[in-house]
Amino acid sequence: MNDFTLDKRLAADTFPLADLPLSQVLLMNDARYPWVILVPRHASISEVFELSITDQQQLWREATQLGEAMKTALGGDKINIATLGNVVSQLHVHVVLRRHTDTAWPAPVWGNGKAEPYDLNGQAQLRDQLLALIDGLDI
Amino acid sequence: MNDFTLDKRLAADTFPLADLPLSQVLLMNDARYPWVILVPRHASISEVFELSITDQQQLWREATQLGEAMKTALGGDKINIATLGNVVSQLHVHVVLRRHTDTAWPAPVWGNGKAEPYDLNGQAQLRDQLLALIDGLDI
Repeated sequence: MNDFTLDKRLAADTFPLADLPLSQVLLMNDARYPWVILVPRHASISEVFELSITDQQQLWREATQLGEAMKTALGGDKINIATLGNVVSQLHVHVVLRRHTDTAWPAPVWGNGKAEPYDLNGQAQLRDQLLALIDGLDI
Repeated sequence: MNDFTLDKRLAADTFPLADLPLSQVLLMNDARYPWVILVPRHASISEVFELSITDQQQLWREATQLGEAMKTALGGDKINIATLGNVVSQLHVHVVLRRHTDTAWPAPVWGNGKAEPYDLNGQAQLRDQLLALIDGLDI
């Protein structure tokens, strides 16, 4: 957990939310979807399998449980979980709450139109909701 | 593991490869990328978190280790792992070996152009490689 520095592009596109045992949780600055990103606090990892087996399990547990909590608390139709990393090489996992009514449905969110930044109220409201459900996770 | 029937669209787009402890492994019929799909042999599950905690860990372990084996054995630049399910609701996990030279790089593979079906030789060759590495997994 030493020497961790968040990738500059991830930092520019997101707001920091909280730390889980393994990962920093970021809120993507795109009001079209409730979209969080988990970044394991390791220095230079690109693939999940570069983590220890224990940390691999922890990362997937954090992504799965946060996705479940988001779907339950915020309401939606499908959780998309993905680790791509073709552009930003620092290992990160997307957790996106999708709705049949969202602008990209049923296509994936990546590369689909332009991000719509949150206004202050919208960001604060979702942030409070996400912090509450992150606080309630048992991981 | 009862009452499992593979979704018709998944069946039409893939070739069956092998069974892992939890999942059926399918080869996507798209020669542009080495692309496999894991389908847990459960009847009616759409989200990873609907599996038991044990099966969640097993599913992610199967996806992560198969991805590692594919990258090591076949050579490539990045493993993409994703569970989307916006079109096919039956729970499935994509494991895609990406290369800087592939047609979609660095974009995600979904919805990107048209699949290029394998010819018989290409399919047989990759199938043999994948079966050998699946056989070597310790999961």
